[in-house]
Amino acid sequence: MAAETWETAARKCRDILKKSVPAQYLMEESKLPSLSTLNVTTFPKESGMLSKKELEITKMSATTLAEKMGVDQFTAEEVVVAFLKRAVLGHQLLNFATEFMAEEAIARAKELDEYKKKTGKLIGPLHGVPISVKEHIGLKGRICNTGYVAWTSNIPKEDAYLVQLLKNAGAVFHVRTNQPQSLMHLDCTNNITGTTVNPYNRNLSPGGSSGGEGASTGFKCAALGIGTDIGGSIRAPAAFNGSYGFRPTAMRNPYKGIILAGDGRESIRCVVGPLASTCVEDLDLFMKTVIDQEPWDVETSLVAMPWRKVEQKKEFTVAIMWDDGIVKPHPPITRGLAYAKEKLEAAGVKVVDWEPYKHDHGWDIVSALYFPDTAACQKEILASVSEPILPLTQHAFNYSRPSPLTIVENWDLNVQRENYRAEYHALMKSRGVDFILSPTYLGVAAELGTPQYWNYTAIWNILDQPCVIFPTGLYQDPKVDVKVDYQPRGDVDAREWARYEPEKFDGAPIALQLTGKHWKDEETLAAGKIVAEIIKG
Amino acid sequence: MAAETWETAARKCRDILKKSVPAQYLMEESKLPSLSTLNVTTFPKESGMLSKKELEITKMSATTLAEKMGVDQFTAEEVVVAFLKRAVLGHQLLNFATEFMAEEAIARAKELDEYKKKTGKLIGPLHGVPISVKEHIGLKGRICNTGYVAWTSNIPKEDAYLVQLLKNAGAVFHVRTNQPQSLMHLDCTNNITGTTVNPYNRNLSPGGSSGGEGASTGFKCAALGIGTDIGGSIRAPAAFNGSYGFRPTAMRNPYKGIILAGDGRESIRCVVGPLASTCVEDLDLFMKTVIDQEPWDVETSLVAMPWRKVEQKKEFTVAIMWDDGIVKPHPPITRGLAYAKEKLEAAGVKVVDWEPYKHDHGWDIVSALYFPDTAACQKEILASVSEPILPLTQHAFNYSRPSPLTIVENWDLNVQRENYRAEYHALMKSRGVDFILSPTYLGVAAELGTPQYWNYTAIWNILDQPCVIFPTGLYQDPKVDVKVDYQPRGDVDAREWARYEPEKFDGAPIALQLTGKHWKDEETLAAGKIVAEIIKG
Repeated sequence: MAAETWETAARKCRDILKKSVPAQYLMEESKLPSLSTLNVTTFPKESGMLSKKELEITKMSATTLAEKMGVDQFTAEEVVVAFLKRAVLGHQLLNFATEFMAEEAIARAKELDEYKKKTGKLIGPLHGVPISVKEHIGLKGRICNTGYVAWTSNIPKEDAYLVQLLKNAGAVFHVRTNQPQSLMHLDCTNNITGTTVNPYNRNLSPGGSSGGEGASTGFKCAALGIGTDIGGSIRAPAAFNGSYGFRPTAMRNPYKGIILAGDGRESIRCVVGPLASTCVEDLDLFMKTVIDQEPWDVETSLVAMPWRKVEQKKEFTVAIMWDDGIVKPHPPITRGLAYAKEKLEAAGVKVVDWEPYKHDHGWDIVSALYFPDTAACQKEILASVSEPILPLTQHAFNYSRPSPLTIVENWDLNVQRENYRAEYHALMKSRGVDFILSPTYLGVAAELGTPQYWNYTAIWNILDQPCVIFPTGLYQDPKVDVKVDYQPRGDVDAREWARYEPEKFDGAPIALQLTGKHWKDEETLAAGKIVAEIIKG
Repeated sequence: MAAETWETAARKCRDILKKSVPAQYLMEESKLPSLSTLNVTTFPKESGMLSKKELEITKMSATTLAEKMGVDQFTAEEVVVAFLKRAVLGHQLLNFATEFMAEEAIARAKELDEYKKKTGKLIGPLHGVPISVKEHIGLKGRICNTGYVAWTSNIPKEDAYLVQLLKNAGAVFHVRTNQPQSLMHLDCTNNITGTTVNPYNRNLSPGGSSGGEGASTGFKCAALGIGTDIGGSIRAPAAFNGSYGFRPTAMRNPYKGIILAGDGRESIRCVVGPLASTCVEDLDLFMKTVIDQEPWDVETSLVAMPWRKVEQKKEFTVAIMWDDGIVKPHPPITRGLAYAKEKLEAAGVKVVDWEPYKHDHGWDIVSALYFPDTAACQKEILASVSEPILPLTQHAFNYSRPSPLTIVENWDLNVQRENYRAEYHALMKSRGVDFILSPTYLGVAAELGTPQYWNYTAIWNILDQPCVIFPTGLYQDPKVDVKVDYQPRGDVDAREWARYEPEKFDGAPIALQLTGKHWKDEETLAAGKIVAEIIKG
């Protein structure tokens, strides 16, 4: 590919996207809300594009949808059409899709309906459930560019293994979603598909790197979504868009066929996990459905741990981390935590405070492990077609040390990481804490192009602890979440506090992150369900 | 430490060893068999040092010993004294110990007897069971040199976590055992303790790197032993000495407090596991006892997989790998496999042949991962005190590529490793094979200083599959295992076949290796028990 043609290659993908949008569901441009309408979450209802039944369908959980299809209240075709309509609308408003797969999805839904009719049974626990999927999760015969122009000719020969398992269970894939260049932004812009925005405030970021999934589930274009996370990439999008997300412990969900630069990197592992539009229960359904198929019997790098049935009672201790000691959260997040504390205590949950333990040390380890080769892999891909490096890509690349780590330096970081994990775990035990409730990000959804501080999420990547994200039901309110006098503790803190102008974040969901212990994925989701319901309910 | 004093430092450790030998159990030098007596396994009986009861005790399994102590047939003190006597004799004949801990062991045994008397109960499943332990498994307050002269001042502040767990269960540690320089020989010589030899033929190697453990369990100086294995270091010693050994899947047994160069290396993991003097059942007892204590709740790098109770029936398929396609096994090993096949078929076990799959490729991966830093870590330790590099150390260092691997080259090897694991696993499934029965080494116990071919064991390290080693009950016989006409396939094959002079290996045990699937540790031991009993019984 000649240097001058990167724009041509990018356009090729945009054309594929454009052609893939099912024209019959497109809204006339003139009838769309103007760009000055920031919060578009109510537009599906106002648009008239979706019937009452379709609106109802798109508000339902995957769990409920499968139940209703089980009793023939809806057909799979009705369900997928409803979500497709909403997804097209969402894409027109948010630019979150990279490709629609409407024909294939409808054809599959019809097959499922046929199956149900013939056998009287659902094909599996995700029968007819529409799932959106981040672009770099490979699909057979479809370009997988991972946000790099240089990769716009890469076509996987088969579906990612996770997708295969979800399809086995009846899932229907109707739309692929956007991600940032290099996958290493908590934002969602690349040189191919452009910028995805937030449905609650289109001046704000949908988060990243699974930003398209955040927008998709936040706008209810899919009941479930699939994201990946090495520093917060499932969780920031879930939080920014008021949806639900789960970062499992590494080596539980199958990863084969997910395409990114730096394959074979194991010191810090990218994990794949679900986002959901309406509830924690669906995150659990996703995990159970995948792991019940014993993926370790094919993908041998996974641990052979069955998905355990957990009866989580309310008798657990939640510790609130108000501040990580590096960047103090903005007012709406602190308000969200205070609200959560009040609700949890009222419900009889034991709540204590969490004193963070060496989060700066954790960041030193994880940030050194992101690009131990000084991002040479990524830079080479970009340079191969002279694709311009975006500012947040450069920001992330700058995490790396000036020269490549040696193998022995990498080993030393592995040792530091293991020690840190063991110490953090021991501390949770000695403090009698089962779960840590914390911010997902220092603020609500960041302004586009600005999210630079990762450590409210990345800390749990280096610690490899499972986290569930859920909305509080509160939203940023410039009248309530006013500026406060605060003396920043350092440059990063100062940078982030300078950005807090209450008016800019109007209407952004206030979400929280509940973190469990290493391997306690099942307990974390079970407690997350309880905690989310108490707080939002 | 000045360069000229490495011999002084080494002598310090030898002095500690010498002083630690309980003098009351020492046999007069003149009464020991002469050096020309190669097989000394019958000497404990002939020596008169052990009473009939003591001889009986030392032939028992850990499982039986605990049972007998449970019904007060023996006291823990009697048991540990019996094994101490045998261990001292063994050390005089084989030079396998690095330090005796007689006082501490007897004191602990008395405590256990007291406990039993008071409560009527055993303290745990290993109550009073004497266990020998490889030197580099750290013990509180005792020098841990890992076979390096430079480390003869290294004194751990606490016991390795595995040792703590075994002590919790009642185990008594009475003797520490020898290992080769760098831990990377399938032999057992270092510049501190010298050379350990094989009880079945003192001209032969006890294997390595857990060679001291091999001799210890082979001579029945302990009911159980603890070794470590990154290329065959538990298995070669178990096989060479006619004892039992188990290499578990990585990340199951706790590793904290085991001291070796290159900490933090994860692309190929050193694992720790048991050797046993009399049966597979004891290997299972060891594993169950450790994992039942949920070590992952302290050592967070372990997987949270409980030890599963497995009812293994005889309805499994064993595939025999007669030859790895690189070095054809020597006649006694082929005889052992043929004997096993006959016995297994007679017992109704389904036996097929195993065509090896790319073992050369597996070796290319694993050998590159042993010293990705060109063994700079190890060389630096050796050079720091001008300790001479032994030939087998140099042989192992030569596995490394000429220059250090970059991080990206290491990643590429990780990818190759994962692909190879998945392919091998898929092949076992598609061929309907549950277990692979194979040589542990190309021959029976090698001549001292010669074991250079690792790939009958190392292949399962790169594949991370669990393996159990057991004796067939057969021994090399120069009259039976005569030289055969054979045209070697390459240099390594030729080197190894040139070494086969039947007379040299007289009396060496013929042992085999049974390998299960990744994570199927429980099934592998359960099947190993059945297979070993059929073959030896």
